[in-house]
Order: sequence, then structure tokens, then C-alpha cells
Amino acid sequence: MTTDADKLDSVVAAIAAEMTARSERGTVADYIPELARVDANSFGLVVVGADGHVAAAGDTDVPFSVQSVSKVFTLTLALGLVGDRLWQRVGREPSGSPFNSIVQLERERGIPRNPFINAGAIAVTDVILSGHKPREALGEIVRFMRFLADDSSIVIDDAVAASEQRTGFRNIALANYMKSFGVLENPVNYTLGVYFHHCAIAMTCRQLAMAGRFLAHDGKNPTTGLSVVSPERARRINAVMLTCGHYDGSGEFAYRVGLPGKSGVGGGIMAIAPGKASIAVWSPGLDTQGNPLVGQIALEILTKCMGWSIFAA
Amino acid sequence: MTTDADKLDSVVAAIAAEMTARSERGTVADYIPELARVDANSFGLVVVGADGHVAAAGDTDVPFSVQSVSKVFTLTLALGLVGDRLWQRVGREPSGSPFNSIVQLERERGIPRNPFINAGAIAVTDVILSGHKPREALGEIVRFMRFLADDSSIVIDDAVAASEQRTGFRNIALANYMKSFGVLENPVNYTLGVYFHHCAIAMTCRQLAMAGRFLAHDGKNPTTGLSVVSPERARRINAVMLTCGHYDGSGEFAYRVGLPGKSGVGGGIMAIAPGKASIAVWSPGLDTQGNPLVGQIALEILTKCMGWSIFAA
Amino acid sequence: MTTDADKLDSVVAAIAAEMTARSERGTVADYIPELARVDANSFGLVVVGADGHVAAAGDTDVPFSVQSVSKVFTLTLALGLVGDRLWQRVGREPSGSPFNSIVQLERERGIPRNPFINAGAIAVTDVILSGHKPREALGEIVRFMRFLADDSSIVIDDAVAASEQRTGFRNIALANYMKSFGVLENPVNYTLGVYFHHCAIAMTCRQLAMAGRFLAHDGKNPTTGLSVVSPERARRINAVMLTCGHYDGSGEFAYRVGLPGKSGVGGGIMAIAPGKASIAVWSPGLDTQGNPLVGQIALEILTKCMGWSIFAA
Amino acid sequence: MTTDADKLDSVVAAIAAEMTARSERGTVADYIPELARVDANSFGLVVVGADGHVAAAGDTDVPFSVQSVSKVFTLTLALGLVGDRLWQRVGREPSGSPFNSIVQLERERGIPRNPFINAGAIAVTDVILSGHKPREALGEIVRFMRFLADDSSIVIDDAVAASEQRTGFRNIALANYMKSFGVLENPVNYTLGVYFHHCAIAMTCRQLAMAGRFLAHDGKNPTTGLSVVSPERARRINAVMLTCGHYDGSGEFAYRVGLPGKSGVGGGIMAIAPGKASIAVWSPGLDTQGNPLVGQIALEILTKCMGWSIFAA
Repeated sequence: MTTDADKLDSVVAAIAAEMTARSERGTVADYIPELARVDANSFGLVVVGADGHVAAAGDTDVPFSVQSVSKVFTLTLALGLVGDRLWQRVGREPSGSPFNSIVQLERERGIPRNPFINAGAIAVTDVILSGHKPREALGEIVRFMRFLADDSSIVIDDAVAASEQRTGFRNIALANYMKSFGVLENPVNYTLGVYFHHCAIAMTCRQLAMAGRFLAHDGKNPTTGLSVVSPERARRINAVMLTCGHYDGSGEFAYRVGLPGKSGVGGGIMAIAPGKASIAVWSPGLDTQGNPLVGQIALEILTKCMGWSIFAA
Repeated sequence: MTTDADKLDSVVAAIAAEMTARSERGTVADYIPELARVDANSFGLVVVGADGHVAAAGDTDVPFSVQSVSKVFTLTLALGLVGDRLWQRVGREPSGSPFNSIVQLERERGIPRNPFINAGAIAVTDVILSGHKPREALGEIVRFMRFLADDSSIVIDDAVAASEQRTGFRNIALANYMKSFGVLENPVNYTLGVYFHHCAIAMTCRQLAMAGRFLAHDGKNPTTGLSVVSPERARRINAVMLTCGHYDGSGEFAYRVGLPGKSGVGGGIMAIAPGKASIAVWSPGLDTQGNPLVGQIALEILTKCMGWSIFAA
Repeated sequence: MTTDADKLDSVVAAIAAEMTARSERGTVADYIPELARVDANSFGLVVVGADGHVAAAGDTDVPFSVQSVSKVFTLTLALGLVGDRLWQRVGREPSGSPFNSIVQLERERGIPRNPFINAGAIAVTDVILSGHKPREALGEIVRFMRFLADDSSIVIDDAVAASEQRTGFRNIALANYMKSFGVLENPVNYTLGVYFHHCAIAMTCRQLAMAGRFLAHDGKNPTTGLSVVSPERARRINAVMLTCGHYDGSGEFAYRVGLPGKSGVGGGIMAIAPGKASIAVWSPGLDTQGNPLVGQIALEILTKCMGWSIFAA
Repeated sequence: MTTDADKLDSVVAAIAAEMTARSERGTVADYIPELARVDANSFGLVVVGADGHVAAAGDTDVPFSVQSVSKVFTLTLALGLVGDRLWQRVGREPSGSPFNSIVQLERERGIPRNPFINAGAIAVTDVILSGHKPREALGEIVRFMRFLADDSSIVIDDAVAASEQRTGFRNIALANYMKSFGVLENPVNYTLGVYFHHCAIAMTCRQLAMAGRFLAHDGKNPTTGLSVVSPERARRINAVMLTCGHYDGSGEFAYRVGLPGKSGVGGGIMAIAPGKASIAVWSPGLDTQGNPLVGQIALEILTKCMGWSIFAA
């Protein structure tokens, strides 16, 4: 183990200790009833370095609902399928609005602002679904996650998916609204079925950090050398994460953390330190923008201690 | 001269040649009458490396109106004056709206979304003005630019400032609107007077690239070693530039160029490659978002050739 | 027959002749495929006076899809069921937006601005449905229409209802959006089923003019003397029609016609001259606000000739 | 004195007694400092019948600031000057927004929705000003008010005008915003000067009710028989008052009162019962929409007792 790995291990351990002890933890999402059952005190942090070293502390092997973090992977898949034509169906600008806003859609004729707000991610799912049965599209997404994480135990939490399907009225509204503008090609309930299920994929911090490695290393798995996407595409996905990955808190995340990252209401954040590390943190309580409160603080400290901000010399 | 400097010189020269030859050049801003007189075929590119080497090509020594690029420097000054209290007067999130939108102000009770849209920059100017006469505040801003660029010849183009003062009805609207919410503390015409004048500062690409060095090097001038701001503040200003520096084209700039940058309707862009270079490019024609068309393309090629994207490993 | 009746007959005949001959007729709604089949040259006008005299000209006995005109009757029914508590679920202010806008719903937490925009009418339908099966609620609405028109031949056009159910994505979006705020109490597809079907009721101008009599006569059928609603409620329904009955063209209709009225995309308008007459006009082509083009002109001429504007001495 | 006049006298006296005793009175406008000095307990009601009979009770001869009620008279003047061409500069649809909203202006390229929101009234003032000096335009407006009220003692309260000019930042913003779209033709400070001053006209309930007579009687002064505007124009001004006269409370006013009316933040309302009466009521406290709280209740009772709703048979 290198000195760097030693430092990383001790930093990660210290952060986990501090974050676990913290009293103010945000509010666990309750709009999906199944998510509300999670223990608000959970905290996990896993960092996979360029050399393959894994620094881990806390609840690193407890599966949680990845929710919107899955949008990074469906974006990657959709770009693989249709390339830059994807950007005719979804923009890549920050929205200046909450994650589930419908106002922007009316102003811009059903084209979502970016692939990370709910409407945009639904449009991306529609692209992946195209010409397939929901079950097939879903299988492809899960297999992609397992491949990236190198872990075939990753599964969908059907109870969470069913919970969203029963209560996700706002997402149903967004999807039908886009359909009314012709932005979705598949039957709305097919697209939403796949969307709700890929959001309901359950992963551990360890699995998530492993899955993100290709984004930290110009599109390649640094251990196997296998290419997932081109270097240019990896850079661009990181750019979209930086500007849009935390909804209407993206500017704040860039300001404080300084890394591309994507949050989910299940409490997970995947963050990328290009050339250095793939990071996953989990803390179920959310702030007022719907981003994990403790997880963001953990990442701010981590970036500072390790000097990993992409905005630093 | 190092090999790197050689490469940089030839890349910069090649880009300038290609960009100068390009026929599609965007539309020169005409909403400020004085700006409309500029030659649409102008192009300049200057890169100041970490080692102090200057690569320059094209119209590098023709002064142009920096316009909104000045907002990076007024932000720096205001943070120096009041520190993080500044963020009570202006946000730091992308706006999802054009540079001169007033809609967002109504929704958020007069607090501009970020310091780089017009309303936000006016609020920042109001902070700098506080307790001073307009002439004094303006003197401080110009002296700061001269200090950063190490060039005492930098002046304000009074004709441009006067032109804006006669025709800048939308900015007058924004300022009065904020005043109605108590967001501005000084008389509106004082604040606007300073704002219009600092936007009317005329600089060359060379001066602008020199002035940006502290942002590329953790807050320090790499040649003199003199500290302008703390490393943390430099990182944070870069982060705000990345998420908000190109108005409603910020996501696009991050996606294509991958550097923190700030554009102006005078055709200038200042971009920062942390640890590597401070860059200034000038091309008067603008795209539909009001950002310099050719300048953005030049930066995209430069970043790709030099491998400087902050999103790459 | 009185002299007034003579005058009315000749005015109605003259208007019908002029309107039938007119070349510019607007655009037949095609967003509901079934509606697009209607003959754009159709025109009918029926006026039922206080004395029971019926002046009729043109296609007065051709059934057409009443669409949004039905909202006046569902509003009346819902007020009968829950009284002023209805106004906790829907407002009574003009929306300043198109009929199918969703923006206002986001700003006002799912409460529609008034019962005549689509979202508001869906909320009203939800109130009528409450505690019943869709088939029962629908039966009640149809029976009410038959009772008011004194005509048991009125039926729902199932092909139109089915057409809307297949393509009404925007209404599905509106309903789910309200459901996400808890504004709808019944299952969304139940409420929408009833809504799509009551909009698909087919009526002739004659039937529609007969059905509106109670609103022209302080809540009573002037022939039978039977009370439908209280005088105050009749006045208030008229007031809501005046301010909100033509979506974002309501101000224009008040300005030009000067009567409470409700339009539908099927080309029908029901208008009320309090104390004087109940009026129905049908012309399938719509203007840019989605209101019948020729029908509005017919009403403007009618009101002027008869001196019926509510704004005149 | 007729029996009707007797009834009107006693109804007016009873209402004044009840309204004066009422404890909940709304909030006196304080955004114009000078207006905040008014006694919140003031109440006046004057009704001028078709026969010239004047029923009056309460503070009927205390001058108050007419504020936005003046917009009815400037609209009348502007229509006299340019006729229907006025509607190229301002719309006639309800805005669905507060009186001082700027959002709608951005969406509709600087054209205000109607002449009774602030932006619209400023545009109307600009039309009156066209080709004159501010002093001349203002003189014309005041002379018109004196002529209509048949009372040469009506004057502008300069302290109120000065107070608005010092603090009316939002109106300055609206005017400059419209100017940026070319909707205003005169220098902004000229137009605003006239606007602030005509809003600062001080009138008593008696004067205001007298001034409104032409609108109640098809454009004519019923006593002198003198025509002010055509019958059609009188109807149309009434229509715009009904749909837009109480800002975002216009639907509510139509629903409850059922008369065309125009409110002002000085606490005055002018209401028109076509063919029956011109009415002025004054109560300084405002509701949350910025309309006089007690005055609206008084009008609701008056209309009900007298059977004057335009929506009744």
C-alpha cells in the first residue's frame, strides 16, 4: 500500500467517524413510501483510487436505492445507442428549477433541459426502450450496471419500483406532458415502467464507486484497461454531471465540492475526481433541494483534504 | 523555450489561422450602439502558461470592450470586501434563463441567481460601491485590473459607457426592480453608473489573459508569487464561472470546452485551465445565447489539443 | 308572435346567412382526431327568449361535440353537491394562460385557477365522481343535461371519448399533476374517464340553448318555472363564465360580445343574456386561442343588434 | 324624491353604518409612504342614480388618493386620442398576475396584458403624453376629471406624487423594461412623471361617483345629456373594468359584486351599474390582492340589496 493510499484510508475513516456522529442529518425522502423506511443514521463512503485501492468506511455494503444516480448510467447507455442524436430529445443546460418542475417543459415545447432532471431522464429511458420490450430494456440496464461494478449480485428492489409506480403521479404527469409534444416514442406506461425500475436498482457504496471508475479514467476501467466509452464521451458526461447533477443545487455542489457528481433521493451520491478516484457516499437524509445533506459535506471535506477539486491548480 | 511551449505556440497559431478564415462568425452585438462598430472579422487568442510563457496569435493587442468578463473581477473584489456575506445578496446557481431575464427576480424576491447574469453583477457592483462615491469605486476596479494585468494602460472607453447609459433600459429595469426589494443599497443611478463603466473597460487579449493568471494558479500570480486570493476562493470563483459563466449556454460551454470561463458581448472570453494556463480569446460575433461564436470554437479546439479539460483524467 | 320575436327571428336569420357565406372560418381542432372530421362550413344559431320563443337558423339540429361547454353544467352540478366548499379545490380567477397550461398549477400547488380551464374542469369532475362509480357519475351528468334541455335524446359520442382517451396526453398530465398535490381524490383514470366522456356529449344548438335557460333567468326554467339553482348561484356562474369562459380570450369576448359565455373546441358557444335569452352557436373552426372564430363574430353582431350587452345601460 | 331613491338612501346609510363599525379593515398601503398616513377607519359611499339622485353616507367629502382608479379615465382619454390603435400598445386580457408583475412582460415582449395593471397604465399614459410636455398632458388629464365630475376643485396631491417618485422603483423598472422593447415612445422619466402625478389626483367619493356617470349611461352624462364617448366605447371600457379592474382579484369581484369596477391602493373603488348608477366607495385598508377590503364588501351588499348585478335577469 502506498503512502497516498494510507492517507486516503485515514481521511475516509475520519470523515465517516465525523459524519456518523453528526446530529443534523436532513430529511429522509418520504414521497416514495418504501424509501421512508431507511435508517436515517446510515452513512457509507467508498473511494476507489486510480491504482485500484479501495478506501471504505461506514455502511459500505448495505444496498440502498440508487434512484437518480442511475441516470448517469442510462445516459451513458443512450449515448452508446444513438450518439449525439440524443441531444435532439433532451438538452444539456442546467434547469434553474427543482428536479420535478414541469414549467420549463411548457416553455420549451416538451424538450427537457438536461438528462438529470426527471423529465430528461424519462426521455433518455424512452431512447433506450426504443424498439424493445420493457423487460428487455431493463435487463440491458441491469446488466450494464453489473458489468461496470463487476458484481453480478446487483438487482432491482421491486417493492421500491412498485411503490413509485403507485405514487409517482408527478413523473406520470411529466411523461404524459412530453408525450403530448411527441418527445416520447413509446407507450408512456412502458417508458415509465422502465424508468421506475431502473431508479429502484439497489446498490452498495462499494458497487457504485466501482461502477463509476470509467468516468474517472477517460472512459476506461483502470484495472482491466477495458474501454466503456471514448475519452471525449467520459469528459462530456462529467461536464453534464458538474452543471446539472444536483438539480437546483448544482451550482452549490460545484462551489463547495468541486467535482462532477450525481445525487439520488435514496441518499446516494456518485462523484468523480478525474484521473484520481471514483467515489460513492450514502446518507439518507436530504436537504431542501433534495440532495443528500451529510453526503455533500463528506465530499466537501474529502475533496479539500485530498486536493481533488477540478478547479484547483 | 520548452517543448510544451513549442506545442502551445503552434496550436495557438493554427487555431488563429483557422478561426480567422472561418466564414460563419455570428452577429456583432448591436444593442449597445457603440459596440456595433467593431470589425466582425477580428480574432485574437492569447494563452499564458504556468511557466509564464505567452502564446499569442491574431489581434492580440487590439483593445475591445470586456463587458461581462469584468464581472469575474468585480466578483473577486466584492468577495475581498465582504467575504461570504456577499452570498446573502446574490446566489450561485445557474439561472436557466437568458442573461437579462427579470422573471427569475420576481420569483426569488429580487435576489439574482448568480453574480454573472446582469442582475447579479449589478448587485455585486452595489456591494463594491457601498460607502464610496461612484468615481472612487470605479477607480478601485480599474486599478485592480491594471494590477492583475500588470499594465497601467488599461482604461475605460467612455463612449461605450455613455452609449450603454443612454440605451441600457433593461439593465435600468433590473436595477430598479432589485431596489424595490431592497437588494441594492446605493442610489440606483450610482450603482448603474459604476456598472456601465466597468463593463466598458477596454482590454486586449494579452491584458485579459495576464489578468486571469491568479485563477489558474490557486489565487497566486505564478510569476511574482504574489497572492491575490486564497486557493479556496480561486477554486470557488472558477466553479461559479463553470456553472454560470456563459448564461444559458453554460452547460454547452462545459460540455464542449470543459474549462471555467466567462464571456462578454464585446466578444471576449476569459477561460481558466487550472494549474496550466490563463486564456483570453476575442471574436466579436455572438451566437443566439449571446456568447462569442468563434471564440468558443477556438477554446474547444485548444482544450482538446492540449488535453486541458478539467473533466479529463 | 311579438314584434320583438319578429326582430329576433330576422336578426338571427341575417346573421346565419352572413356567417355561412363567410370564407375565413378558422381551423377545425385536430388534436382530437375524431373532431377533425367535422364539416368546417357548418354554422348554427339558436336563441331562446324569455318568453320561450325560439329563433333558429342554420345547422341547428346537427349534434356536435360540446367539449368544454359541458364544464358549465358540471360546475353547476358540483356546486349543487358540495356548495362553496368547491372553491377549496378550484379558484375562480382568470388564468392569463392557454386552456391547457400546466405552469400555473406548479406556481399554485396544484389548485387550478378556475373551473373552465382543463385542469379546473377535471378537478370539478373529481368532485362529482366522489364516492361513485364512473358510470354512475356520467349517468348523472347526462341525465342533468337531458333534464335541462328537456330532451332525452342527448347521448355521449363514444368514438370521440375514445379518441380523447387515446390521445389526451396533456390532460392526463394535468390530472396526474394535480393528483401529486392531493387535489384529486379519485383514481386518476376514473376521473379522466368521466371527464373525457362528458366532454364528448353530443348536442345540437337547439338542445344547448334550451339547456342554458336557467342561467338567463335567475336559476329558473322560465317556461316551467322550475328552479334549477338559486338566483345568486345563477349570477355567480354567469360571472365565472364572463371572466374565464373563453380561456385566454375571455377579455376579448367580454370586450366584443359583452355576454357571459362558454366555448368548446367542438365549435360550440353557449352565451347568456341575463333576463333576455339563452343562446347557442356552432361553428367548428377555431381562432388562435382555441375559441370558435365565426361563432364569436355571430354573437358580437347579435348582441349589438339586440342591445343585449350586460355592459350597456 | 321617488320610492327608489328612498330605498337607495336607506340602503346606503345602513351599509355605511355597518362598514364603519366593522373591526377587520385590511391593511393601509404603506409602499407609498405618504399613503400610510390615512386614517384606516375612514369609510365613504356615494351612489349617483340615473335620475341624478345622490345617495351618500360616511366620509363622502374627504379627498383621498385615487391612484389606480385614475386609469379608467386615462384609458378613456387615450382611446379618444388614438382610438383602437391603442390596442397595439396594450392588451385587454386579464393578467392572472399581481398588479406589478413583470413576468408577463418578459413573456409577451413588453406588451402589457391590459390597461389596468401598472405596466399597461404606464403605456396608456405614454400614449396621452405623445407629442406634449408632461405638464400639458397632466393638465389635460386633470381638466378631464374636473369636467366629468363637474367640479373644478379637483387637484393633484403633490406630496403623494413626490413620495411615489422617490420610492416607486418597481414602476420605474416596469417602464424601463417596456422602453427596452420599444413599447414606450417618450423619455421614461417624462411618462413616469405624468403617471405618478395622475395617480396622485385627490378626489372625494362624491367627485368620483359623479365622474363615473358617463360609463353608467352609454357614454352620456345623464343630467346634461352631453356625450363623453360613444355607447360602444362605454360598454367596452366597462367590459375591461369587469375582467381586469381588480388585478388578480377581478374574478372574485365579478363573482361577489357583479359590476364593472376599478380599485386603487388609496382605498377607492369606482363601480358602474349600467343604466342604474355610478358608485364610489372609499375604505383605505386593502386585502392581500391590494384591493380595498371593506369597500368590496360594501359593494357586494349594495348590489345584492338593489338587484344591480349585471349577471342577474
